[in-house]
Amino acid sequence: MIYLDHAAATPLAESARRAMTPYLAEKFFNPSAAYLPAAELRREYEAAKERIAHVIGAKGADLVITSGATESINLAFSLVSSSAETLISAVEHPAVRANAQRGAKCQIVQVDANGRIDLADFQAKLNKNTQFVSVCLASSELGTVQPISDIARLIHAERQRRALAGEATPLYFHCDASQGLGLMEVKVARLGVDLLTINAAKIYGPKGVGALYVAHRVPLRPQVLGGGQEMGLRSGTENVPAVMAFAAAIEEAAKHVSSEQRRLRQLKQQLHQDLADLPNVRFLGHPKTQLPNYLVLSLPGFDAERLIFALEAQEVYLATGSACSANKGIKSPALEAIGLNDAEIAGSLRITLGKLNDSSNLAEAAKLIHAAVRAEQQRMQGQG
Amino acid sequence: MIYLDHAAATPLAESARRAMTPYLAEKFFNPSAAYLPAAELRREYEAAKERIAHVIGAKGADLVITSGATESINLAFSLVSSSAETLISAVEHPAVRANAQRGAKCQIVQVDANGRIDLADFQAKLNKNTQFVSVCLASSELGTVQPISDIARLIHAERQRRALAGEATPLYFHCDASQGLGLMEVKVARLGVDLLTINAAKIYGPKGVGALYVAHRVPLRPQVLGGGQEMGLRSGTENVPAVMAFAAAIEEAAKHVSSEQRRLRQLKQQLHQDLADLPNVRFLGHPKTQLPNYLVLSLPGFDAERLIFALEAQEVYLATGSACSANKGIKSPALEAIGLNDAEIAGSLRITLGKLNDSSNLAEAAKLIHAAVRAEQQRMQGQG
Repeated sequence: MIYLDHAAATPLAESARRAMTPYLAEKFFNPSAAYLPAAELRREYEAAKERIAHVIGAKGADLVITSGATESINLAFSLVSSSAETLISAVEHPAVRANAQRGAKCQIVQVDANGRIDLADFQAKLNKNTQFVSVCLASSELGTVQPISDIARLIHAERQRRALAGEATPLYFHCDASQGLGLMEVKVARLGVDLLTINAAKIYGPKGVGALYVAHRVPLRPQVLGGGQEMGLRSGTENVPAVMAFAAAIEEAAKHVSSEQRRLRQLKQQLHQDLADLPNVRFLGHPKTQLPNYLVLSLPGFDAERLIFALEAQEVYLATGSACSANKGIKSPALEAIGLNDAEIAGSLRITLGKLNDSSNLAEAAKLIHAAVRAEQQRMQGQG
Repeated sequence: MIYLDHAAATPLAESARRAMTPYLAEKFFNPSAAYLPAAELRREYEAAKERIAHVIGAKGADLVITSGATESINLAFSLVSSSAETLISAVEHPAVRANAQRGAKCQIVQVDANGRIDLADFQAKLNKNTQFVSVCLASSELGTVQPISDIARLIHAERQRRALAGEATPLYFHCDASQGLGLMEVKVARLGVDLLTINAAKIYGPKGVGALYVAHRVPLRPQVLGGGQEMGLRSGTENVPAVMAFAAAIEEAAKHVSSEQRRLRQLKQQLHQDLADLPNVRFLGHPKTQLPNYLVLSLPGFDAERLIFALEAQEVYLATGSACSANKGIKSPALEAIGLNDAEIAGSLRITLGKLNDSSNLAEAAKLIHAAVRAEQQRMQGQG
């Protein structure tokens, strides 16, 4: 198997698996129970939250543990009332798009041809009624990293203007860091966000667990009511094993982020060179700010799904567009937003590298991709 | 360790751990991905849902997988609009109570001295405006099993009355089966419910996963928006390992339910006899319909928390009231509802048996409980 879809899912790291194991059948207690081993377990759980928070420059008390990025995003959007105006980029995850539309008005900021947000358009659309801004750290389709701290500065200026004008409309900034975490430094203060979504399953952690960072001043509304866990913001018995594994995974990712960046950038460069002579190939995403593991390309005239099926027969696994949506057949809004035409979208492939790749399996992947494209070309010519 | 708190948490069964393992680092794909191993994974996931559903007499398509009972309960209550009237019993979980109060009016049905719902009071309170009824299969504090199918019959009669009278007000029946599943047969058709909450963590399955059974006609509103997973009702990448383990755990529980019932009933009887001569002891819960693993007792005049701390020093772990609430210091509504006075509530202990118990460790537990009570008695007399 040559796995080229690390943005869709990652295998559980051995360190994360080890971190989880004692909490399955031994330290399995309910952390809310009154006796000592349960209280100890609560301390370990809180310490693990502290460790997760530390990686993003926050405190454990700033984190609400959730069942994953989608729930985190939904919880962040609990701030949006039905009368609120929201502002999002054109390259957001379906969870962000769906939630942004719950408000009275949702404006969408344009991106440039590389998928990077247009700051002038952002500034034009950020108005006195905007209550909630959500921009991803990196788009899942293109991997283009967004200028989050620049956006935060514009938001800060608008907040100051409102304060001086005596306007009471609140304004919050959420960033979905599902893609990007583990591949670049992510610190909430440097980013300047009020809310940050992170996810374990994309960084070799367990599935079914994520977190929402919530700055102190943000009056989040609980979406799941019950026993009052997670400071009353997200009830339900704590998933201790998952959080222990999440902590191990995010710490491991943070520890190796620089070396992994370098390694992936080199691998990406190698694969880029190997695929540069594909017919009419166009590489997508910002050449400089794209995540180091993303290689997105379009082969106009080809049917990307056919190529994927041809490659799966060779045990090479890659994606078209985002794998996050269970609703198939929807054209990728991100690829439309960067101005691709239908043929370019239909021929687009997303390769995302990670721990399962090395120079040798990528050289092999390149050969197999070339072969699949040639075979498909011959098939099409035979039809023509 | 002598663990007497199986209603609060259970260790992961070896079969469930084995069922989960291949999905951690090998079959780790995103089930929404386009390539074959991902599609195979989706089939395995759907098959596991089918197996879970089968145990409760439903179809896989009737289940929405959630992060646990609390989320399932919240999702069920998505049917309750702010103008709706709700009807719940006096012995519900905090998640049910909190959600029921989101409606315009929440009525609470009395229970008898054993914690069993008063059907006459239920009938009196079920009126033409009631839109949502929620009654637990067994209360977590008392283990008293509720007459769910009798309640379902009353609800059915009210629905028929509405239909004949041309009244359009809908009426739904939700049952929280978090306690009871694995200890008795649970079949949705026999219970007559529209919605049923089940949970893996209480039946030796993994933490962080549960399900909501939803009958066909019930127009549930999604609470978590995004990629459209779980038939659009609960977005978020599927937690495949947890669901595989959930399926293994619920199947194992169902397979052994009769023998485990017998075994637990015998153990309970043994412990009941061993504790019957505690000073002024009163056993709580319905003598016939209490779950076979519940032994709830009150020692008026004693401080149950002090006893728990004394016993934890002997590595005997048991509970006061419900361990589900992270908000401490709240008087148990269930124990108040059965008419206990403050001294009886303060002296109440909940023992819930399970796989970690046998005749020998329960005999030992009884001795240690007697010793703890004697020591506490002497301390109190010394103070007096």
